[in-house]
Amino acid sequence: MTHPSIKERFREILLQHNFPQHYYLLAISGGVDSMILLNLFRESSAKFQVAHCNFQLRGDDAIRDEEFVRDYCAKHTIPFHSVKFDVEAYQKTGNYSVEMACRNLRYDWFKDVQKVNNLDYLVTAHHLDDNLETFIINLSRGTGLKGLVGMQIDNGKIFRPLLEFTKSQLIAYAQENNLDWKEDYTNETDDYTRNKIRHHISPILKEIHPQFNANFLQTLEFLNDNQQIIAQQIQLVKTSLFKGENPIRINVDELKKLNPLASYLHYLFESYGFLSTKELIKFLDSNTGSEIKSDTYRLIKDRENLLLIIIEKSTENEIQILDDFIEINSLNLKFVKSKNPNEYATEIVDFTTILFPLKLRKVREGDFFYPIGMNGKKKLVNKFMKDLKLSKLEKENVWLLCDQNDQIIWIVNHRLDERFKTTQTSKNFLNITLC
Amino acid sequence: MTHPSIKERFREILLQHNFPQHYYLLAISGGVDSMILLNLFRESSAKFQVAHCNFQLRGDDAIRDEEFVRDYCAKHTIPFHSVKFDVEAYQKTGNYSVEMACRNLRYDWFKDVQKVNNLDYLVTAHHLDDNLETFIINLSRGTGLKGLVGMQIDNGKIFRPLLEFTKSQLIAYAQENNLDWKEDYTNETDDYTRNKIRHHISPILKEIHPQFNANFLQTLEFLNDNQQIIAQQIQLVKTSLFKGENPIRINVDELKKLNPLASYLHYLFESYGFLSTKELIKFLDSNTGSEIKSDTYRLIKDRENLLLIIIEKSTENEIQILDDFIEINSLNLKFVKSKNPNEYATEIVDFTTILFPLKLRKVREGDFFYPIGMNGKKKLVNKFMKDLKLSKLEKENVWLLCDQNDQIIWIVNHRLDERFKTTQTSKNFLNITLC
Repeated sequence: MTHPSIKERFREILLQHNFPQHYYLLAISGGVDSMILLNLFRESSAKFQVAHCNFQLRGDDAIRDEEFVRDYCAKHTIPFHSVKFDVEAYQKTGNYSVEMACRNLRYDWFKDVQKVNNLDYLVTAHHLDDNLETFIINLSRGTGLKGLVGMQIDNGKIFRPLLEFTKSQLIAYAQENNLDWKEDYTNETDDYTRNKIRHHISPILKEIHPQFNANFLQTLEFLNDNQQIIAQQIQLVKTSLFKGENPIRINVDELKKLNPLASYLHYLFESYGFLSTKELIKFLDSNTGSEIKSDTYRLIKDRENLLLIIIEKSTENEIQILDDFIEINSLNLKFVKSKNPNEYATEIVDFTTILFPLKLRKVREGDFFYPIGMNGKKKLVNKFMKDLKLSKLEKENVWLLCDQNDQIIWIVNHRLDERFKTTQTSKNFLNITLC
Repeated sequence: MTHPSIKERFREILLQHNFPQHYYLLAISGGVDSMILLNLFRESSAKFQVAHCNFQLRGDDAIRDEEFVRDYCAKHTIPFHSVKFDVEAYQKTGNYSVEMACRNLRYDWFKDVQKVNNLDYLVTAHHLDDNLETFIINLSRGTGLKGLVGMQIDNGKIFRPLLEFTKSQLIAYAQENNLDWKEDYTNETDDYTRNKIRHHISPILKEIHPQFNANFLQTLEFLNDNQQIIAQQIQLVKTSLFKGENPIRINVDELKKLNPLASYLHYLFESYGFLSTKELIKFLDSNTGSEIKSDTYRLIKDRENLLLIIIEKSTENEIQILDDFIEINSLNLKFVKSKNPNEYATEIVDFTTILFPLKLRKVREGDFFYPIGMNGKKKLVNKFMKDLKLSKLEKENVWLLCDQNDQIIWIVNHRLDERFKTTQTSKNFLNITLC
């Protein structure tokens, strides 16, 4: 690729990106890559603003760079945003490396600037050498396809129009067009691994094949296509195996037929937050009632199925009943005090036996009650549920209707307590209806 | 991985390969990798023989190596095969590099030895470093997934039990076990690219990540899994889009809906020998009747479909009719001379008008005939077929029944020639039946 073509190719890329529909925020450090990005945008008719981060890690150089970008924007009347970060203070808020801290600070701030100024795309000056370095780092870490395809030119949020150009093409372009930029000397030292790759591996790869860069770009495209094809296959498998919603039911035997199993499990469950394939494989053969959790989902083994259930953030375990009608998830209960037992009621108890207010709560360890029809014998609620052969999930969904003293009146929808039953002498009734 | 574990791990790998079911041919050069392979096999209870190639390219060293392996096998009573090749002579038979020539000669000979001795698996001493070098070479060439997954431990024909060990693990193992081997000094110089990688890239990769080798092995496994998942998706797509057999019909609009199109076309058509994706994409929009060919298949554009047709190697264009019954592909013709016209015949001609023997042949440019019912007017066969709106494929399947003088008697199954028709004075008939 010759240098003048960078400009032409950049225009094509902008067009492919439907640039008039977007308002961009350019992340500009003042280094050669970002100043080329800024220059190319300035020469286009795209709408954009500029953001510069000062991490205050490089003394006078950091001040110099900020001034440099600010002046450039002022000169060309480009809306400019800048921020100063206290990286060390941020690092103390968690276990962050300098790189990670800068990354978090930078991207969070960009998001804020975008929101306030209504800028829909962030634009960075990443180039092909960045992707090659990432490829090799991920290779050395033992990655899947995802780690090898690297950054995307457009991931829906970030636009990287320089991603197909190499560093040396960019530098040649900058020199040829007399662009001005500020060297960041820490680039040469701040990342041990990337520098090893940049200085010792990349040059040899280019010696091995004169077209290495173009070919590597081609490889990335192929791998990207492969990823899309895999996603389509995974979607087909998901459609055929994942039944229903919350819980999603997945037949274990069907799941086990998938081959290669480990990779299928990885792709099928990663979006639910389950990232350990080994754990998933083991889980397939676990006992009924076994459970593993991600941040967002529970996975329960229930005989021949796996159940995938959303973890509701605000699942209540105890609810005071202050009205005569209460709705909890799919459970609708109506309470009516009456002189007569209502024949349509689900259960009827003796009103005078109850100490109000009522409450509904989940089962706790050690809960007991006196099941009606057992001659006043006491029974553990857990034992009662076990005898009913309720599944783990069904057990969790059991509600107890209790009185003020936490005595169990009714295991909702299952069994009344002997102590609250109506007798021949009852005169006031509480009719409870499950609607 | 510590050294003693090579032996244990090797045993596991043999077991996974169901080794008692196989009879192996070990390719043994005498170098360290192959001598370890030989040693490990000798210490197992696997059945095997040994093959050694002498390419006569390294003077006395080549003789020394052959003797070394021969002696080892004699000492341990292992069936031994060897061969001497004239590489230069072979190179002259085609445009082969030394490497390619050696490769072809070697693998062809191995096949012969396997066949004669009933050895179902070839075993080579390829190791992880070989796969890493291949990975990087293919990366530099711009490859897809196939080029990155490298050699397989078992591809159904070749078994590579050392593929997960690194060169340095193998050398340490050989030293620790006091194995004897012969150094091949050309290894250090004979392959420029592999040596660049071996000496300049691999060491740095190992510096970048201490677990590089294990992680790279992991990556290869992931990529392998990905390839399998892709193959399953391609099979599903093929099942839904490729209709019928020879010709296989493929709806062009359905094909065009596939995304990413280029990669899908690559995977769908590579097994039919169509390797240029660009050509395939262009072909989708070509005119009806357009055609491209691979070594084994023709791909024809026929209105809304593509037709995929096997190229029959022995497709005859002209067939002498020496019997009264002839079968060509799906065409079965029966000829009966009779005093009476047979009412069940497909066509009946006047026997006396024909100069025998008859022949069947395909249409040639410039062929003409006198269609019956056109008052003796002459017509080009091509024009006749065009007026019938025959497709390209149908036209190619048209046979002409001709007499000794190559006069067209019948465009089989379409139209008789005026010159051979029966008249009121006909006394002898040739009844032709399409069965």
